[in-house]
Amino acid sequence: MTNKMKAVVKFAPELNGTEMRTVDIPKVGMNDVLIKIKTASICGTDVHIYDWNKWAANRIKPPLIYGHEFAGEVVDIGSNVKHIKKGDFVSGECHIACGHCYQCRTGNAHICENVEIFGVDRDGIFAEYVAIPASNVWKNDPLLPAEICSIQDPLGNAIHTVFSTDVIGKDVIILGVGPIGTMAVSICKNIGAKHVFAVGRRNQYRIDLAKKVGADYIFKSAEQDVVKEIMNITEGKGVDVVLEMSGNPNAVLTGLDMLKPGGTISLLGIYSKPLTVDLSEKVVFKYATIKGINGRLMFDTWYRMAGLLKNEHIKADLKKIITHKFKFDEFDKAMQTMRSGNSGKVVLNME
Amino acid sequence: MTNKMKAVVKFAPELNGTEMRTVDIPKVGMNDVLIKIKTASICGTDVHIYDWNKWAANRIKPPLIYGHEFAGEVVDIGSNVKHIKKGDFVSGECHIACGHCYQCRTGNAHICENVEIFGVDRDGIFAEYVAIPASNVWKNDPLLPAEICSIQDPLGNAIHTVFSTDVIGKDVIILGVGPIGTMAVSICKNIGAKHVFAVGRRNQYRIDLAKKVGADYIFKSAEQDVVKEIMNITEGKGVDVVLEMSGNPNAVLTGLDMLKPGGTISLLGIYSKPLTVDLSEKVVFKYATIKGINGRLMFDTWYRMAGLLKNEHIKADLKKIITHKFKFDEFDKAMQTMRSGNSGKVVLNME
Amino acid sequence: MTNKMKAVVKFAPELNGTEMRTVDIPKVGMNDVLIKIKTASICGTDVHIYDWNKWAANRIKPPLIYGHEFAGEVVDIGSNVKHIKKGDFVSGECHIACGHCYQCRTGNAHICENVEIFGVDRDGIFAEYVAIPASNVWKNDPLLPAEICSIQDPLGNAIHTVFSTDVIGKDVIILGVGPIGTMAVSICKNIGAKHVFAVGRRNQYRIDLAKKVGADYIFKSAEQDVVKEIMNITEGKGVDVVLEMSGNPNAVLTGLDMLKPGGTISLLGIYSKPLTVDLSEKVVFKYATIKGINGRLMFDTWYRMAGLLKNEHIKADLKKIITHKFKFDEFDKAMQTMRSGNSGKVVLNME
Amino acid sequence: MTNKMKAVVKFAPELNGTEMRTVDIPKVGMNDVLIKIKTASICGTDVHIYDWNKWAANRIKPPLIYGHEFAGEVVDIGSNVKHIKKGDFVSGECHIACGHCYQCRTGNAHICENVEIFGVDRDGIFAEYVAIPASNVWKNDPLLPAEICSIQDPLGNAIHTVFSTDVIGKDVIILGVGPIGTMAVSICKNIGAKHVFAVGRRNQYRIDLAKKVGADYIFKSAEQDVVKEIMNITEGKGVDVVLEMSGNPNAVLTGLDMLKPGGTISLLGIYSKPLTVDLSEKVVFKYATIKGINGRLMFDTWYRMAGLLKNEHIKADLKKIITHKFKFDEFDKAMQTMRSGNSGKVVLNME
Repeated sequence: MTNKMKAVVKFAPELNGTEMRTVDIPKVGMNDVLIKIKTASICGTDVHIYDWNKWAANRIKPPLIYGHEFAGEVVDIGSNVKHIKKGDFVSGECHIACGHCYQCRTGNAHICENVEIFGVDRDGIFAEYVAIPASNVWKNDPLLPAEICSIQDPLGNAIHTVFSTDVIGKDVIILGVGPIGTMAVSICKNIGAKHVFAVGRRNQYRIDLAKKVGADYIFKSAEQDVVKEIMNITEGKGVDVVLEMSGNPNAVLTGLDMLKPGGTISLLGIYSKPLTVDLSEKVVFKYATIKGINGRLMFDTWYRMAGLLKNEHIKADLKKIITHKFKFDEFDKAMQTMRSGNSGKVVLNME
Repeated sequence: MTNKMKAVVKFAPELNGTEMRTVDIPKVGMNDVLIKIKTASICGTDVHIYDWNKWAANRIKPPLIYGHEFAGEVVDIGSNVKHIKKGDFVSGECHIACGHCYQCRTGNAHICENVEIFGVDRDGIFAEYVAIPASNVWKNDPLLPAEICSIQDPLGNAIHTVFSTDVIGKDVIILGVGPIGTMAVSICKNIGAKHVFAVGRRNQYRIDLAKKVGADYIFKSAEQDVVKEIMNITEGKGVDVVLEMSGNPNAVLTGLDMLKPGGTISLLGIYSKPLTVDLSEKVVFKYATIKGINGRLMFDTWYRMAGLLKNEHIKADLKKIITHKFKFDEFDKAMQTMRSGNSGKVVLNME
Repeated sequence: MTNKMKAVVKFAPELNGTEMRTVDIPKVGMNDVLIKIKTASICGTDVHIYDWNKWAANRIKPPLIYGHEFAGEVVDIGSNVKHIKKGDFVSGECHIACGHCYQCRTGNAHICENVEIFGVDRDGIFAEYVAIPASNVWKNDPLLPAEICSIQDPLGNAIHTVFSTDVIGKDVIILGVGPIGTMAVSICKNIGAKHVFAVGRRNQYRIDLAKKVGADYIFKSAEQDVVKEIMNITEGKGVDVVLEMSGNPNAVLTGLDMLKPGGTISLLGIYSKPLTVDLSEKVVFKYATIKGINGRLMFDTWYRMAGLLKNEHIKADLKKIITHKFKFDEFDKAMQTMRSGNSGKVVLNME
Repeated sequence: MTNKMKAVVKFAPELNGTEMRTVDIPKVGMNDVLIKIKTASICGTDVHIYDWNKWAANRIKPPLIYGHEFAGEVVDIGSNVKHIKKGDFVSGECHIACGHCYQCRTGNAHICENVEIFGVDRDGIFAEYVAIPASNVWKNDPLLPAEICSIQDPLGNAIHTVFSTDVIGKDVIILGVGPIGTMAVSICKNIGAKHVFAVGRRNQYRIDLAKKVGADYIFKSAEQDVVKEIMNITEGKGVDVVLEMSGNPNAVLTGLDMLKPGGTISLLGIYSKPLTVDLSEKVVFKYATIKGINGRLMFDTWYRMAGLLKNEHIKADLKKIITHKFKFDEFDKAMQTMRSGNSGKVVLNME
C-alpha cells in the first residue's frame, strides 16, 4: 500500500465541476478505521456538489473529497478501536455524532448538536480509501453484494421514513419516485401495505421503475389531478399515510389534501421554497400529524434494514433500482447518468 | 315539569345577537337522555355565534339553541338506554359520533365521519334542558362542584393537547393564554414539566392568570422577542414541546423557531390565515413533529381528566380560572364579560 | 322463510356430544341484525364444548347453539339499526361489548367488563341463522371468498398478537402451530420479519403446514432442544419476539430462555397449568416484556386485517390453511377432522 | 494530591465484612475521568456485598472497592476526553456499556451485552477517588445539593420504572417501600397520579416515610388483605398500574390480582424465589402486560430526572427520604443504619 490514492475532489468554489486527483491516503486517528472502498454510489447531494448549486456554495468548503454511500473493507484501525478488525466488510453511517450531547444521549444521534457529515463537511468516499470513526462503521452481512450494501444510506432514509408511520394494512402514497421514493415503494409493498400509490411528476423512466418494484397505482402529477384520483379510488376516504419524498412544496399540499383525517404525512424532501398552508383545515380539524425526517436512526434503522435485507423480494427490487454500474474511472459518465433523471441508483465499482 | 323552557336562541342569520326565548323542552329519543342544566359555561365558539362572524355564518343554521359546556342532572331516559338513570350528575361530550365509521371504530370518534356537535349543528345547552345521546353522557364525580364539571370540555381540549406530547421533566411553552392555554399551564405544571413558559399577546389580565396557575416564565409577544428570550433561558437549546393555543399563524412560526430539534409542536388553535413556513429548515432538518389537535379522545381524555381532577392543586387552579359567575338570566352580561378579554372562564348558574 | 332452522345444539350437560336440531329462528331485537350463515368454521373452543371438558362444564349453560366463526348475509335488521342493510355480506366479532364501561370507552372493548361471547355465553352460529348486535357486524369485501371471511376471528387473534410486538426486520419465533400459530407464521413472513421460526410439538401435519406458509425454520419440541438450536442460529443472541400460541406453560419458559434481552413475548395460549418462573433471571435482568393477548381490538384489528387481506401471498396462505371443507350436515365428520389434529382450519359450507 | 487514598474494600471472600484501607488512587485511562468523591450513598446491593450473601459470593471477585452512588468533582481527564473538564460537578451511571453491541446501538445500553457495573464488577466509589469512562459521567446542575445528586442512581431506577407505564390520572400501587419504592411514591404523586397506594410488609418506619412523601393510602401486607382493600377502594375495578419494588414473588401475585384488565405491572425487584402464576387467568384473559425493569435508560432517564429535579415538591420529598447522614469514616455505622431497616437513604459526606 503506497500512501497515495485516487479521489474525486471538489477543488475550488469558483470553478465548475469536480476532478479525479491523486491525494494522500487519509491518516487514521485513534478512534478511526481506514476502509478500502469497494463500491460507491451517487446521492442527489453529490449532484448538488457537482452542480455547485446554492446549497453547495453555502455549505461546502473546498477542497473536499465528496460522496458518502459505500461498501468496503477495513484495512487499518486506530489504537482505541476494539470491536472492528482488518478484513471486516463494512459500510458507514455518514453522520459523525459527538456522542455526548442531548440528542446523542437520547437516541437521536442523527440530529447531534455537533454533527459532521463525511462527504459534505469533511472528506468522503469518492476515493480509494476513507478514514471514519469506528462508531460510524456498520458491519455488513458478508453474503450481501457490495452494490446493495453501498446503497444502505438512501435505503435507510426510506426505511426511517416508512417506519415513522404505520403502513401495514394501510393505504400509503409515496410522492416522488426518485431512488429513495422507489425504495419506499418496495419496502411498503413488501411489509404488507394495503395499497401503495406512487406519484412522479412526468419522468416515465422513474414512474415505470416504481411500478416494477410493486406500486399498485402510479400517477403523473403533471398530467393528472392526483387528489381527485386518490379520493375516487379510496371512496372519498383518502390515504392513511403520505410519504413526501419529492421536495416539492406543492406535493405537501396535495399530500395533506388526500390524507385521511387522523393520518400522518412524513417529509423527507428538501424544499427549495416555503409552503403556504391552511393549518385549520389541513392539520387541526384533520387531526393530522406532520413529521420531518432526515438521516437514519443510529442504529435502529440499520438493524431494521439488516433484517429487511434478508427478504428476497426486497433484494430483487433493489437490484432493479440499481439501474447503472460504472467503473470508478468513469465517474463523470456516472454523474451524467444520474443527472439525466433516466436512472435509478448509479453505482461505481472501484476495482 | 311543564313542556316549556327558557333557552338562548340564535334565531335568524340576518339579525344581530341572540335572545332568551321560551321554547319546547326537547323530545327524548330512544337512545337519548334528558338533562336539566345546572351550570353552563361560555366557549370562544359561543362568542363567534353571538358575534355572527364568518365562520358562524357558514356553519350555523338558525334557529339554534347554542352552548355546549355544562353540568346537570338526568331527568329522563330513552327506552334503549340502560346504564344511565334519573338523578345522575353528568356532563356531556359535545361531539355526537355515529359509532360505526372507521374513525369511531378505531379510537378517534372525535373526528367521526358523520359527526354533529351539539350547540353548533343541533340544539345545545344554553337552556334549562337538553336531550343528548346516552353515549355522549359523562358521569361526574358527585363530589366535584358543578362549575368545574361544566368546564371539562375546554379542560379536555387542554389535556388532549398536553398528552399528545411528552412534557414531564421537559421544557414546555404554551402560546396563547386564553382559558384553554391557561388550563394547559396548570396541567403541565402539575404533572412535572421542567419549566412552563407562557406567552400572551398583551392582555395583562390573562398573562397574570397564567402566572397565578403556575407559569415559571411569562411573556408578551407584542412587546418582547420571545424566541430570543427562550433561546437565552434554554442556553440555545430551545424547548422540547410547544403547545400552540393562540390561533395566530405567526405563533406557529415562532413556536417552530424555539423548538428543540426532535421536538413536537401541537396545534389546538383555529387559524384565520394560512401559514407560510420553510419546511426544510423548520421541520425536516429539525426532525420536528407537528400535530393537529381538536376535541377530546372519547373517552380516554375524559378518564384521564377524572383522574387529574383528584389533584388538589389542579382543582385550586381551575377555581382561579373561573373568574366570573352569573345567573342564567344575566346571559348577555356574561357574554360581554367573555368578549372583553378580561376574564378566564365565565360560568352561568341556572338556578 | 319459515320460522324454523337447523342448528347444532349442546343440549344438556350430562350427555355426550352435540346434536343437529330444528329450532326457532332467533328474534331480531331493535339493535340487532339477522344473518343467514353461508360459511362457518370450527374453533378449538368449539372442540372443548363438543368434548365437554372442564372449562366447558364451568362456562357453558345448555341448551346452547355454539360456534362463533362465520360469514353470511344480512336478511333482517332491527328498528334502531341504520348503517347496515339487507344483502350486506358480513362476518361478526364474537365479543358483545356493553359500549359504556371503562374498557369499551378506552379502546379495549374486547375486555369489556360486561362482555358476552356469542357461541359461548349465548346462541352462536352453527345454525342457518344468527341474530347479533349491529355493533358486532363487520362488512366484508364482497370480492373475498366466504371461507376466508369465516376465519377472520382466528386470523384476527393472530394479527392482534403479531401487532402487539414489533416483528418487521426482526427474528420471531412462533410456539405452537395450530391454525392460529400457522396464520401468525404467514403474517410475520409477509410483513417482513427477518426470520420466522415455528415450533410444533410432534404433529408432522401441522409442522409441514407452517413450513408451507413460510416458516424459515421448523422445529419439533418433543424431539429437539429448541432453545439450543435457536441460540445457535442467532449466534447466541436469541430472538426479538416470541409469540406463544401453544398453551403449554413449558413453552413460555423456553420462550423466555430464547428471548433476546429487551425483547417481548406475547401470550395468546390458554394454559391448563400454572407456570413457575424465575422472574429475576428471565424477566427483570432480561428487561423482558410479557403481554397477555386475547380477542381482537375492536375494530383496529379488523381494519388492519382487511388491509392485509389485499395481499395475494397472505390470501394464498390462508387457502392452504383451510385444509378441509364440509357441508353443514357433515358437522360431526368436520368436528372429528378438527379433533384429529391432522388439519388446519375446517370450514362448513351451509348451502 | 498524593497517590494514595482511603477506600472501603471487600478484601477476601472468606472473611466477614469490609474494611477501610489505604490504596492507590486509580489510574486514568485515555477514555476516563478521575473524580474526587464528595458524597456517596448506600444501595441495597452494597448491603448484599457487606453481608456477603449468596448473590455476592457468586458475582463479586475480591478485592473490590464497592459502592456506585455518588456525586463529586472531576479532577483529571484522559487524553481522548473532550467534553468534560476539571472542576465539573458530576455523578455517574454505574453501567459501563461497550458502545458497539446491538443493545448499546438501539437505546438499551443499560442491558449492554458486555456490561460492567462499577462497584460490582470493578472498583467503585466508596473511596476518595474513582476513575470511570467519560461516557458514564453525568453533569449535575451546580445548584443541586451533592446529597441529592448522589442518590440519582436509585431515583433513576424509580423514574425508569414509573415511566415504563402510564400513571398520570391513573390509580397506581407501589409494592415495597424501601428507598426506591418511596421515591416512586413521590414521583407518581408529583406527576399527577389519581391515587397512589403504597404497601409495606410491616416496617412502620418506612410505611410512615411513604405517607410523608405523598401516598394517598398505605397498607401493611403482613397484617391486611391488601387485594381486598384495594378492590373495595377502587369499587372492584383494581388499579391501572402496579410497580413491584419489594422483590417478593408473592407481591407479584397480589399485584396481578389487583391489576385492572388491560393494566401494566412493572417489576424492579430482585426475586430470591421463583413465582408460580396462573397465566391464563392473571395475564392472558386479563390482557395484562408485565415489564421487567433494571438500571436506567442511558441517558433518557437521566434527562427526565434532571427535569423532575426542578420540581420543589420532589426535591423536598428527597430530602425527607435521605434520613441519615454520616462522615466517610463512620462507614460501618452508616451500613448498620441501612441494615436496620429503620432508614430511608443513608448518605456519606466525604469531607
